[in-house]
Amino acid sequence: MDTIKILKGDIAFTKSPDEVTTYKNGYLVIKDKKILGIYETIPESFQKISIDDYTDQLIIPGFVDLHVHAPQLDQVGLGLDKELMDWLDVYTFKLESRFQDMDYAKEVYNRFVDQLANNGTTRSCIFATIHKESTQLLFERLKEKGLGAYVGKVNMDANGAKYLQESTKESIEDTREIILKYSNDPLVKPIITPRFAPNCTRALLKALGQLANQHNVPVQSHLSENKKEIQWVKKLFPEATSYGDVYNHYGLFGQTPTLMAHGIYLEEEELKLLEKQDVTIVHCPDSNMNIASGMMPARRYLDRGIKIGLGSDVGGGHLLSMSQTIVRAIQNSKMLQTLTGEKALTMSEAFYMATKGGGKFFGKVGSFETGYTFDGLIIDDEKWTKERLTIEERLNRFIYVGDDRNIIIRYINGVDINLK
Amino acid sequence: MDTIKILKGDIAFTKSPDEVTTYKNGYLVIKDKKILGIYETIPESFQKISIDDYTDQLIIPGFVDLHVHAPQLDQVGLGLDKELMDWLDVYTFKLESRFQDMDYAKEVYNRFVDQLANNGTTRSCIFATIHKESTQLLFERLKEKGLGAYVGKVNMDANGAKYLQESTKESIEDTREIILKYSNDPLVKPIITPRFAPNCTRALLKALGQLANQHNVPVQSHLSENKKEIQWVKKLFPEATSYGDVYNHYGLFGQTPTLMAHGIYLEEEELKLLEKQDVTIVHCPDSNMNIASGMMPARRYLDRGIKIGLGSDVGGGHLLSMSQTIVRAIQNSKMLQTLTGEKALTMSEAFYMATKGGGKFFGKVGSFETGYTFDGLIIDDEKWTKERLTIEERLNRFIYVGDDRNIIIRYINGVDINLK
Repeated sequence: MDTIKILKGDIAFTKSPDEVTTYKNGYLVIKDKKILGIYETIPESFQKISIDDYTDQLIIPGFVDLHVHAPQLDQVGLGLDKELMDWLDVYTFKLESRFQDMDYAKEVYNRFVDQLANNGTTRSCIFATIHKESTQLLFERLKEKGLGAYVGKVNMDANGAKYLQESTKESIEDTREIILKYSNDPLVKPIITPRFAPNCTRALLKALGQLANQHNVPVQSHLSENKKEIQWVKKLFPEATSYGDVYNHYGLFGQTPTLMAHGIYLEEEELKLLEKQDVTIVHCPDSNMNIASGMMPARRYLDRGIKIGLGSDVGGGHLLSMSQTIVRAIQNSKMLQTLTGEKALTMSEAFYMATKGGGKFFGKVGSFETGYTFDGLIIDDEKWTKERLTIEERLNRFIYVGDDRNIIIRYINGVDINLK
Repeated sequence: MDTIKILKGDIAFTKSPDEVTTYKNGYLVIKDKKILGIYETIPESFQKISIDDYTDQLIIPGFVDLHVHAPQLDQVGLGLDKELMDWLDVYTFKLESRFQDMDYAKEVYNRFVDQLANNGTTRSCIFATIHKESTQLLFERLKEKGLGAYVGKVNMDANGAKYLQESTKESIEDTREIILKYSNDPLVKPIITPRFAPNCTRALLKALGQLANQHNVPVQSHLSENKKEIQWVKKLFPEATSYGDVYNHYGLFGQTPTLMAHGIYLEEEELKLLEKQDVTIVHCPDSNMNIASGMMPARRYLDRGIKIGLGSDVGGGHLLSMSQTIVRAIQNSKMLQTLTGEKALTMSEAFYMATKGGGKFFGKVGSFETGYTFDGLIIDDEKWTKERLTIEERLNRFIYVGDDRNIIIRYINGVDINLK
């Protein structure tokens, strides 16, 4: 089998947040699923290799969604007249309890995985529910589709609901079982997923920290999303110096690679801890707006050098589209700008966060630099009079007004998943 | 010809901002293009009339977009790293100058009208450009398509650009010509459209006020969108007590029905004047976010009883979709809520603004109450497991995550425009 693949097209990606790098009808050469280089003409040694010809179409990195709740696809757009804590109680917990029903789970997870792929999200970090069986179904469905993901069976043994809670022992055992089963999969891997500090006993947090460190498994959770939530954490964990310190105390805050969704109201000491522990913050602007959480200063964190990516946070966010998540991140930062005068995010910064920034969590993913794993989208923007615009302007336009209809091919880990 | 039409389906609309009124598979009876009533069973006298059967599909009022720049469709998503005044200079004015070229205008306006209809916008208030010929082309294209609209030839005789400015005389004469030509059209009518105060001399504003009052033509313009803009207006018109007062002085502020886009930073005296003159404010949240204008307190104005509708404001806004404009209005109000504690917009309030609230500018439009002109959309939401949701939940879901693909039929003024 040939291990060299060549794509031709209008290439756009970010090496850094500062600028978009573009090539007009360049040749992207991929060897063993990784980028070898981009060339203006085909190098002599590859002249016999057939070309996937996307002349005049855009080739961009696949999108990375660092925070999304798969079950909540079935509640998008519902209950959004409520704030976080009520929204969880009235809608979300009831919905998630249904994922013990495998038929229901199969229907929703099939839709979720298909829509994720349609929207060009090639890598994602996913919360499932507390249910071991249906969580495994989600692993299997993602593998079948060929998507890259970290999937977390949710852990919650406190302050849930009668119909959505597990025993500490059960939570630990089920998590261990999934870690052992899936850790060696090349694309769909387990991640330790305490729902958020208030939903976990100290015993559970301690055991999860041990599991993470013992099996070298990454961690994802929620941090500092809502003012009431923060007060609640302070009340539940008075011994901790901050919300982040709760996780850190139990080895769940950067001891293995860690994602924390939201981080809207971080205190300075907490930020320093987060920097020291190299924890990645996931900015979820649509969700922050929809459930009235607050305005996250993403640009400030980016400038500070904090690792930061974007999340759709479906179902707090209503759309799986990472291009609309990019737009919302920019919009959120512009509203902050009108209030505080601090600089708003540029397109290249937000695009970086949704590709290379978030991609770091998966290794060398999200860029077309040499050595990066090739995840790419082919964008057909013909109807928008492409001849008048630069490649960067066309990227801007696709991000702002394009949708899944413009994404015609999706490559993940070097493979066109439409062909699977 | 039969003057009675009956539609069957799941009906949703707002009589007031407070709640959504729904009927499960109700019969909507239309007589001479106007709503006669909604019935749970077909009244005896209408039993022989054939039914447009949309059982289990949603029937909602058509959307009203009170502020949109047709030429700017060709710049959506571009240049949004800039603020209003720079964005106008670098992108918008150059683009609009191209509308003296009829071939170019035809291409963009055809796309604009088609996309407006696709998105379910049945009525709109449109800015064209200063060019008389291509503005008439837009009138004609809207008429052909069967959409309802007010269309304004833009007036600007000051502070424009070399390539985008007209003489005072020319501006007045061209405007008068269009008024005389189109005032009697049933669906597509002229509206006096001074771009904004800084782009007009006092002589032009005076003449436009006279034209408006003489021919009883409505008025649209921009008001208080950006802090730098407001300072500029104060410098240019030191004799005025407020930005709104500039228009009022020349008979362009409620002397005939008047729309003012934005109104973000209105002063209390200005608000009182606006209330007294019964001027309608158009809230354009996507645009306010995209060009970093500010956070408009829409809910506060709505509560105060001020007339208020929604605008996509393409190209400051990037999407013609009024459902996404509704979402953004709610999101904007929720961000304000986290800052000031004032109540956010609910779905019914924002939906009202995009239908009956904005529809008032066209007469009895935007509701399904008896006597209202029938503008309606048929929404197919089958794929979202409709059996589990109430009609109101399905409306919410369509607004948040639906798009033009879900709108299968569009009625305007009692007519299915797909059949035209």
